[in-house]
Amino acid sequence: MEETKFCRDSFVVKTSIVLPPDTNNHGTMFGGKLMAYIDDVAAISAMRHARNFVVTASTDSVDFLHPINEGDAVCLEAFVTYTGRTSMEVLVKVISENLLSGDRHVCAISFLTFVAIDETGRPTPIPNVVPQTEVEKSLYDSAKERAEARKKRRRET
Amino acid sequence: MEETKFCRDSFVVKTSIVLPPDTNNHGTMFGGKLMAYIDDVAAISAMRHARNFVVTASTDSVDFLHPINEGDAVCLEAFVTYTGRTSMEVLVKVISENLLSGDRHVCAISFLTFVAIDETGRPTPIPNVVPQTEVEKSLYDSAKERAEARKKRRRET
Amino acid sequence: MEETKFCRDSFVVKTSIVLPPDTNNHGTMFGGKLMAYIDDVAAISAMRHARNFVVTASTDSVDFLHPINEGDAVCLEAFVTYTGRTSMEVLVKVISENLLSGDRHVCAISFLTFVAIDETGRPTPIPNVVPQTEVEKSLYDSAKERAEARKKRRRET
Amino acid sequence: MEETKFCRDSFVVKTSIVLPPDTNNHGTMFGGKLMAYIDDVAAISAMRHARNFVVTASTDSVDFLHPINEGDAVCLEAFVTYTGRTSMEVLVKVISENLLSGDRHVCAISFLTFVAIDETGRPTPIPNVVPQTEVEKSLYDSAKERAEARKKRRRET
Amino acid sequence: MEETKFCRDSFVVKTSIVLPPDTNNHGTMFGGKLMAYIDDVAAISAMRHARNFVVTASTDSVDFLHPINEGDAVCLEAFVTYTGRTSMEVLVKVISENLLSGDRHVCAISFLTFVAIDETGRPTPIPNVVPQTEVEKSLYDSAKERAEARKKRRRET
Amino acid sequence: MEETKFCRDSFVVKTSIVLPPDTNNHGTMFGGKLMAYIDDVAAISAMRHARNFVVTASTDSVDFLHPINEGDAVCLEAFVTYTGRTSMEVLVKVISENLLSGDRHVCAISFLTFVAIDETGRPTPIPNVVPQTEVEKSLYDSAKERAEARKKRRRET
Ligand SMILES: CC(C)(COP(=O)(O)OP(=O)(O)OC[C@H]1O[C@@H](n2cnc3c(N)ncnc32)[C@H](O)[C@@H]1OP(=O)(O)O)[C@@H](O)C(=O)NCCC(=O)NCCS
Ligand SMILES: CC(C)(COP(=O)(O)OP(=O)(O)OC[C@H]1O[C@@H](n2cnc3c(N)ncnc32)[C@H](O)[C@@H]1OP(=O)(O)O)[C@@H](O)C(=O)NCCC(=O)NCCS
Ligand SMILES: CC(C)(COP(=O)(O)OP(=O)(O)OC[C@H]1O[C@@H](n2cnc3c(N)ncnc32)[C@H](O)[C@@H]1OP(=O)(O)O)[C@@H](O)C(=O)NCCC(=O)NCCS
Ligand SMILES: CC(C)(COP(=O)(O)OP(=O)(O)OC[C@H]1O[C@@H](n2cnc3c(N)ncnc32)[C@H](O)[C@@H]1OP(=O)(O)O)[C@@H](O)C(=O)NCCC(=O)NCCS
Repeated sequence: MEETKFCRDSFVVKTSIVLPPDTNNHGTMFGGKLMAYIDDVAAISAMRHARNFVVTASTDSVDFLHPINEGDAVCLEAFVTYTGRTSMEVLVKVISENLLSGDRHVCAISFLTFVAIDETGRPTPIPNVVPQTEVEKSLYDSAKERAEARKKRRRET
Repeated sequence: MEETKFCRDSFVVKTSIVLPPDTNNHGTMFGGKLMAYIDDVAAISAMRHARNFVVTASTDSVDFLHPINEGDAVCLEAFVTYTGRTSMEVLVKVISENLLSGDRHVCAISFLTFVAIDETGRPTPIPNVVPQTEVEKSLYDSAKERAEARKKRRRET
Repeated sequence: MEETKFCRDSFVVKTSIVLPPDTNNHGTMFGGKLMAYIDDVAAISAMRHARNFVVTASTDSVDFLHPINEGDAVCLEAFVTYTGRTSMEVLVKVISENLLSGDRHVCAISFLTFVAIDETGRPTPIPNVVPQTEVEKSLYDSAKERAEARKKRRRET
Repeated sequence: MEETKFCRDSFVVKTSIVLPPDTNNHGTMFGGKLMAYIDDVAAISAMRHARNFVVTASTDSVDFLHPINEGDAVCLEAFVTYTGRTSMEVLVKVISENLLSGDRHVCAISFLTFVAIDETGRPTPIPNVVPQTEVEKSLYDSAKERAEARKKRRRET
Repeated sequence: MEETKFCRDSFVVKTSIVLPPDTNNHGTMFGGKLMAYIDDVAAISAMRHARNFVVTASTDSVDFLHPINEGDAVCLEAFVTYTGRTSMEVLVKVISENLLSGDRHVCAISFLTFVAIDETGRPTPIPNVVPQTEVEKSLYDSAKERAEARKKRRRET
Repeated sequence: MEETKFCRDSFVVKTSIVLPPDTNNHGTMFGGKLMAYIDDVAAISAMRHARNFVVTASTDSVDFLHPINEGDAVCLEAFVTYTGRTSMEVLVKVISENLLSGDRHVCAISFLTFVAIDETGRPTPIPNVVPQTEVEKSLYDSAKERAEARKKRRRET
């Protein structure tokens, strides 16, 4: 697989309104519901890069910095930051927006790893990603360290 | 209300994967499910423009040009094209993407009208929209005609 | 296909209660959620007529005349009003009911066009519909005009 | 509360298509999903009779006579058959329809008891139901026996 | 099929939080939603016993003893109490818990009958259940009577 | 707040069947859907311990070790392993079960941190947890290290 792709080729945006079943008794969004949105948008990004089926191999730790209220918009942005042979790292940024005031907060940042799989469910090669902007390059460079940390973590458990 | 806003200020994108409960026995998306997505993204766009609550006043006719398959991504883009005193027209463009091949189709184009409402549920003024690009200007100019056609339609029924 | 059917053969009723996830922050039903219900009941009606799979080809414009509140019942009635060779027009009438007071409102009237499709997804012939009551006959007669308007619309876009 | 009402005043119909999340690995509908539909339509019927909020007090036993397949329509019909002071019995009849062949089966018959409640959640009086047709009269007459059996059952547990 | 199994082999627990779409306008859980949960957990229990696909043949009557409030936890426990040749009886106990106060109530007790089916959808033999504790033995002994009552009921309708 | 509680006081079990909308085109469960289940069961556990409302402050990294198939049961077990002043660590263990064969796999292990909040949404003290079994004690002892790692992580980002 000689092909390469840019980060922007896998850029995906998903904006939704937070509805009553997404929220707890304080009217703020469940962390798990947000995790489901994060995985959803990241999987589309990974499939756009790999042009193949993908499965979530892992999610790194996530800190929930701000509560998101019922009626807020939640906007998720994802793109592929780094690629191995069959696995790729996807960054998801979550921004909440109070639709009445326009106030926006970064609520969470998350790195997920997806593995491309063939019909039999086995890992299969993917194109390399080529970072272009400063931000993309910096994420690409720090990705090797994160990949190492994940391998170490897997060996330990 | 002297304030004005640009079309791009209300630009909203929502990308989703088509799942089994969204599809009929042929594995293609229900028209009504797509209509729900269209209204959803258009409402966020209208609230971003009005910074107020909104209700759907009407949707113009929609032609469904291409079936959307289970597992496809469906990408909706919306922005405010025209404003009256309390109502605004929102354009939604629906593009499907086969995530394995990358094939994309424009599946539907839809104009909806939303009305901003205050706490008591009564129509309330909104900022004027100012078109900038050629496409925005052309949509803005043809909007008066569409608004007239809607008024005529309502008088007849 | 010589067979004919009456309008009442495709008559379908669907009554539901409006729940929290169906409503916006004012506690009134989303327009898009109602569109999904409309398409749902119309598709059953079209399948009852065609005894075949169907897809939504288009929905005409819809005006939302009254807000529908959380806790209201919403009652949809649909039947086939007109048939072409492979396509049929379905009328859906939406009535809301305040279950405590019994107050009822016609909230929307919608014409949809469905096309019957065979296993390969290609348009396939359907029985002719035969109107019987005065209302059915009047809808049948005005349907040709609506079909013409749709064709004109498709040519223009 | 002197008011009386007819059975037909509380008559409710709900037709739906059976979708993938409603079905098990054999592609047939979950019994519990059908029970949820039964309670849903019966509650609307009870509210139409009582013009008050209601809660489900009990459901009698239900036999599931025929599997309902994915893609089938399921049609539920409900009306109030009998009234006590604050409670009422609702009959629900479930008919499945293969939309391609038109084959229909009675899949289940169910009696539920609802109690009308006021703002404080306490049982509150309802109008008497007056049966008119032969079927309604026969159901009304046998209802006292069913009410007795329910009381006996509650005493025993 | 000589194999036998214990009641505890099919013991299943399911704990959930009651969310807004599960509740009526009084903020208490719909009876039908609870029935769906009951069937869900009972089906898992029956499959654990039979190691085969199962369908719900019937549910006995259910009395709803306590309202369950939005935000409460609802805990369901199920196990197989009795086996015929191809059918088995499953007991489900429903306990609600106010998560702030710790107050718990038994809200409903329900007996369901499931039938194991093979690929063609026909009833197929299952292992015998062997009760061990006093409670299990007493439920096992009274089950024959309940099975007789169900057969009588089916003959009558 | 002098009160103490045992790990087993917050022990929660949730068993579910994997349904079509939970799965991708390979018929295996979405990682994000599992994350939503994990957060759901962990939140119940945290509320049982704190007897107060809680929000998810963070989730540690999660490795998805085995795919979970449509029709499998997924069983989640959670309990509070460690407590700070207002925050607590919850461990969730995810086991999948092929209901036909009985094969079980540990699919994921996850640590989440919840913070108890009062009516104004501010962190509020919780009881101390007292580990009893060997496993509980070992988790309790290693928790301080994990809490330190989280604080370090927050400072760095
Ligand atoms: C979690 C939250 C209440 C913490 O508020 P805060 O102002 O940082 O509170 P404090 O600094 O006083 O910390 C309170 C406790 O939370 C812990 N904490 C805060 N952030 C944390 C994190 N990301 N991970 C783990 N623990 C965290 C602190 O260590 C402290 O613990 P202790 O009392 O046991 O010593 C706040 O960040 C918040 O509301 N986040 C959003 C939560 C949410 O809505 N989640 C779902 C998002 S969809
Ligand atoms: C509807 C569809 C099958 C029509 O296919 P086509 O190749 O244009 O078929 P034809 O030109 O042979 O037309 C077939 C019939 O459909 C009618 N038709 C086609 N497009 C239509 C439209 N937008 N509105 C109303 N009728 C339409 C034609 O008039 C013709 O009617 P007749 O046979 O009664 O004379 C095709 O456009 C399609 O698959 N669209 C997507 C449908 C869908 O998936 N809907 C849900 C989207 S989420
Ligand atoms: C349940 C079903 C498979 C039984 O089929 P059947 O042809 O009546 O089978 P049989 O007469 O051979 O009976 C098989 C077993 O089921 C039991 N059974 C049948 N109907 C029953 C009922 N309503 N209640 C309890 N047990 C019942 C019989 O007693 C017999 O038990 P045993 O083998 O332990 O002695 C069939 O009625 C069916 O498919 N029903 C629909 C199930 C369904 O789809 N449920 C969900 C509805 S949404
Ligand atoms: C992810 C999975 C396919 C990896 O399979 P495997 O047999 O371990 O594959 P390999 O050892 O060949 O590793 C393949 C790639 O995945 C990476 N990988 C494996 N596990 C990983 C993890 N937990 N985190 C990050 N990357 C991981 C490897 O580093 C390797 O990357 P590379 O090809 O870019 O060098 C497998 O563990 C799996 O199917 N897990 C379940 C996935 C799933 O269903 N998720 C949703 C759960 S609800």
